[in-house]
Amino acid sequence: MNEDLSLFLNELKKEIEKQLPIHIKKLQAPDTLKEAMFYSLNAGGKRIRPALLLATVKSFGKPLEHGYDMACAIEMIHTYSLIHDDLPAMDDDDLRRGKPTNHKVFGEALAILAGDALLTYSFEVITKMEVGNLTAEQKLLLIQELARASGPEGMVGGQVADMEGENQSLTLDELVYIHHHKTGDLLTVAIIAGAIIAGASKSDIDNLRQFAKELGLMFQIKDDILDVEGDAETIGKPIGSDDGNNKSTYPNLLGLDGAKNKLSEHKLKAETYLSNVNLDQSLLMALTNYVAERDH
Amino acid sequence: MNEDLSLFLNELKKEIEKQLPIHIKKLQAPDTLKEAMFYSLNAGGKRIRPALLLATVKSFGKPLEHGYDMACAIEMIHTYSLIHDDLPAMDDDDLRRGKPTNHKVFGEALAILAGDALLTYSFEVITKMEVGNLTAEQKLLLIQELARASGPEGMVGGQVADMEGENQSLTLDELVYIHHHKTGDLLTVAIIAGAIIAGASKSDIDNLRQFAKELGLMFQIKDDILDVEGDAETIGKPIGSDDGNNKSTYPNLLGLDGAKNKLSEHKLKAETYLSNVNLDQSLLMALTNYVAERDH
Repeated sequence: MNEDLSLFLNELKKEIEKQLPIHIKKLQAPDTLKEAMFYSLNAGGKRIRPALLLATVKSFGKPLEHGYDMACAIEMIHTYSLIHDDLPAMDDDDLRRGKPTNHKVFGEALAILAGDALLTYSFEVITKMEVGNLTAEQKLLLIQELARASGPEGMVGGQVADMEGENQSLTLDELVYIHHHKTGDLLTVAIIAGAIIAGASKSDIDNLRQFAKELGLMFQIKDDILDVEGDAETIGKPIGSDDGNNKSTYPNLLGLDGAKNKLSEHKLKAETYLSNVNLDQSLLMALTNYVAERDH
Repeated sequence: MNEDLSLFLNELKKEIEKQLPIHIKKLQAPDTLKEAMFYSLNAGGKRIRPALLLATVKSFGKPLEHGYDMACAIEMIHTYSLIHDDLPAMDDDDLRRGKPTNHKVFGEALAILAGDALLTYSFEVITKMEVGNLTAEQKLLLIQELARASGPEGMVGGQVADMEGENQSLTLDELVYIHHHKTGDLLTVAIIAGAIIAGASKSDIDNLRQFAKELGLMFQIKDDILDVEGDAETIGKPIGSDDGNNKSTYPNLLGLDGAKNKLSEHKLKAETYLSNVNLDQSLLMALTNYVAERDH
């Protein structure tokens, strides 16, 4: 990774990890619930969604701190989805990022409720944002975008389609649908939210939405490629682990070279959309390169 | 029940049950997810939260239809909470209102996701409300009130406190905390939301909030009393069923007469708060009487 980008991402990660506990500490709620919510929020990860949001705010020349609350709200949504995904009825995972999953520590009932609480609270956090001249209309738009991206037409819909597609061979269209919604929509909304907070024009927002969709697909295709050719130690999970449960992947559908071509195609599209947006493009371009070239 | 009130409530119930499917049908989401969401939304029930909201809108002299979307949003939150409560990891119930629970029909994974989807979608529905002169500020306030009432400081917090209080003897304060949050907050927000939609003043909203809190406690105390002295056939569950799992109840803590006195106390307070509000009081007063005097 570009050294400047790496430094920038590390700083954002530290800042977001300073902000997240503030939102939980102020809650008047049973301590165990707050602990369960905080345990998963605090479990690390790349903080890629907050980074995308804050990078977008910065690229429009606005102060990073204008994006903090919204970045926390999106990270709460992402975290709730991981807690629920890990449940025995879903993926039944005991470990996440090397730590016991939420239900392993707090029990299934509390894990379900901690997820529900994070999901619900994220919307309250947005209503309370105090940022520059952000209007009620803009906050409402942030809520609408986040709810759509994470609800039945977004992340939850993608998750259901993914479950239904297990152990079936999917077409490329079906695979794209799943990735767009299961992971892409929340990445997209991070960028869109940054643009809304920065007061971007409708046309800039439209182009960024297309850019983000391409970036999301790139992210997933690269994941699939790394899964085939990556080094187990570098990516931290068994190579080919997605093969095990018969998942459709880009390399399975298109071959490894075909998947790499697809990645380049989407990268070109992403760059084109980004070039139409009226902002400093260097940071988002560096992120795009990183997504395509990362080795883990 | 007063015959006028009964007719009115029946009409509202029918109208809400006409409105709810509209919101689900328009979703672009996997069919199974839509089916699972709709199954529980459509499972009947008293629709008490929509009725409280619409009764409040009407009492301020505004058209009932101004409250339809918000009533549906609140019913979605209530329904998601029932789906998650019924899960094996929670109350492990096979039946609700005489029908198989969501996870019995669709499986646990889809039931969890259908709940998540209803919860998330409810906020999107509010952002899209097109009602009279409702401003963005008012919609934002509706979202804030609903998120707080149903999140960690509200319903979910109450649910956690209730779980932790099981098989323990609680003080009256602890019992009140649980009821306020587990069930009271969502009843309260229904009334508050009706007032916001009707453009009520801050002072009217404050008084209605106190009124609603008293009404919520009355509802719970009456439930506890009916559970002791009710007729099994009338209330539709085994008499004393809350005794079985050692729950603290008002009659257990205060005796049956003590609980009845408490009910009268709260009714008096409710009436006092209501009398301070600048609206036609007849409908909400009739509802208050009904809550205190109902036999099931």
